[in-house]
Amino acid sequence: MPIATRAFAATASDKPLTPYSFERRDPGPDDVAIQIKYAGVCHSDLHIVKNDLGNTTYPIVPGHEIAGVVTAVGQNVTRFKVGDRVGVGCMVDSCRQCKPCQEGEEQYCVPGMTQTYGSPDPKGAGVDQKITQGGYSSAIVVDQDFVLRIPDSLPLDAAAPLLCAGITTYSPLKTWGVGPGSKVAVVGLGGLGHMAVKLAAAMGAEVTVLSTSNRKRADAERMGARHFLINSDKEAMKAAAETFDLIINTVSATHEISGHLQLLAKDGTMVMLGLTTEGLPVFAMPLLWRRRRVAGSLIGGIRETQEMLDFCAEHGIACDIEMIAPEQINEAYARMEKSDVRYRFVIDIDKLAA
Amino acid sequence: MPIATRAFAATASDKPLTPYSFERRDPGPDDVAIQIKYAGVCHSDLHIVKNDLGNTTYPIVPGHEIAGVVTAVGQNVTRFKVGDRVGVGCMVDSCRQCKPCQEGEEQYCVPGMTQTYGSPDPKGAGVDQKITQGGYSSAIVVDQDFVLRIPDSLPLDAAAPLLCAGITTYSPLKTWGVGPGSKVAVVGLGGLGHMAVKLAAAMGAEVTVLSTSNRKRADAERMGARHFLINSDKEAMKAAAETFDLIINTVSATHEISGHLQLLAKDGTMVMLGLTTEGLPVFAMPLLWRRRRVAGSLIGGIRETQEMLDFCAEHGIACDIEMIAPEQINEAYARMEKSDVRYRFVIDIDKLAA
Repeated sequence: MPIATRAFAATASDKPLTPYSFERRDPGPDDVAIQIKYAGVCHSDLHIVKNDLGNTTYPIVPGHEIAGVVTAVGQNVTRFKVGDRVGVGCMVDSCRQCKPCQEGEEQYCVPGMTQTYGSPDPKGAGVDQKITQGGYSSAIVVDQDFVLRIPDSLPLDAAAPLLCAGITTYSPLKTWGVGPGSKVAVVGLGGLGHMAVKLAAAMGAEVTVLSTSNRKRADAERMGARHFLINSDKEAMKAAAETFDLIINTVSATHEISGHLQLLAKDGTMVMLGLTTEGLPVFAMPLLWRRRRVAGSLIGGIRETQEMLDFCAEHGIACDIEMIAPEQINEAYARMEKSDVRYRFVIDIDKLAA
Repeated sequence: MPIATRAFAATASDKPLTPYSFERRDPGPDDVAIQIKYAGVCHSDLHIVKNDLGNTTYPIVPGHEIAGVVTAVGQNVTRFKVGDRVGVGCMVDSCRQCKPCQEGEEQYCVPGMTQTYGSPDPKGAGVDQKITQGGYSSAIVVDQDFVLRIPDSLPLDAAAPLLCAGITTYSPLKTWGVGPGSKVAVVGLGGLGHMAVKLAAAMGAEVTVLSTSNRKRADAERMGARHFLINSDKEAMKAAAETFDLIINTVSATHEISGHLQLLAKDGTMVMLGLTTEGLPVFAMPLLWRRRRVAGSLIGGIRETQEMLDFCAEHGIACDIEMIAPEQINEAYARMEKSDVRYRFVIDIDKLAA
């Protein structure tokens, strides 16, 4: 039976989000039906709501940092049962045939992953849903292969943002081999940045936070950063030149990165995680001179996401969150645009009006 | 005894190169004195002559693609003897203490390598030389640790440009693991590009040349390219999307690279080899979407340069050259600026007026 679902949706790029009702599909044999308890608020949600990438279909329910409890499972579902604590991240399906899918990196699926919201949704035809709808909603139905198990020791609310902010930072730290002895810098202490600090520190790296002001210094140190640098402090930046093996750049606003490239040691990499619609000027000289690299990285595969959740449970890591009621979402967006959040808004979905 | 040396030098950024005489230092115990036979003409020479990087000291003798014959050796020199065929590339010394130097990557020397021309030259004090002077000259004196052996099977003239164009392309091909099965694209078929094609093909890669016109297609195929793409052919570029493991970008003029990034497979790297003084706009999306990378690479270490020369001898590879007399250098620069050279000018140093 289709599942009546309450939600908050954007109906146009210049309108606030408002209450919205729709139906989730009748769970199929491979599906897990989930009562959503918490949904993290990611900067990407705002990009899509405001149609910054130019391809948003309205109405759209954002949210891809989902934590909840299983309410029903299809007949083929073996790994989950009713009552399990589960999560859903940025993808709900992929082609499963291409090389990246076969290798467990569904986020790089060649025909393209099915994103949690805003992707064409052939499975939604029976309930008149043309696109997938995300986690600012009371329920979701997801193929079991895209459902994550949330370890018991992780609080559901602080675990929700791990499904995007956690995996987006965990994956590049693993890809670029961070471990004891690594020197890692994190640019920007926001939703992604604060997770990068916690994860890199737990992996044994010596972590430095680069920020525009001293405002978050105490937080950074509490999260595991050993050093704190102000971007505009030319002396300190000069002293830190050629130091880092990896820079995790979480800033999604367009900004000059050449100065930051100088901080990389030989063969060091700056990984950009923020969606930007404008080009960043990259100068060849700092790249050539120390064989430095600039790279991108996109969330992580399902297997790696489970690994990240287990790693967080093992190390007692979760997100620092500010809980909001669903009707505070527009205010939360306004604060997020001013980087005024410590460090992730999470919507208390139980408070969605019936 | 100091060595009277004839040369061509630039005396100002807006003046043509003219004949110039100076003295090379009396060879010390670790030095090799070399009679220069051939000097390749690199685009970097032109950048320095025209002071494009803003730090040129005049008069300056360019040239860092040097091939010649040993005329004298110091008492500590064991690896070379009079009459040996030798080469000198972009460096003539380094600190030898830092980690890159210890690891044989002297080009990334932390205090900075001593470049073949234009670097401060403490060893030149006895002959009143404040900066190092390069290979557009009749002789050079170099520490044995920075002298390369040119295998007998390589012609000296076509070997000269290997000392920069050869190693600059060989090193990234090795760093990024090119071998049988690799798919490599080379952007720009010039001095660097034509060597990248030959070397990558000899390593067993499937090589594609990207160019602005069909003008050099036959040459590319003769050099070992299996495919040839016109940059502006949108259909062909689209068909080649997500194909390449490595793109060797040899174009030194500022140009848009985002379109080229789309050609990279997941985890693929575009290596930039050209010196550019303006920033290239890099868009995060193509990097994020397939975890692509943009990197720089600078020549190669001494050990790797010898390895490259031996590899070229083994595979019968050398540069395609156009020989010029020293007094044709200004005309050669003018042609080089129009990419009108197949594929490297080499100066016949024997023709320097006595």
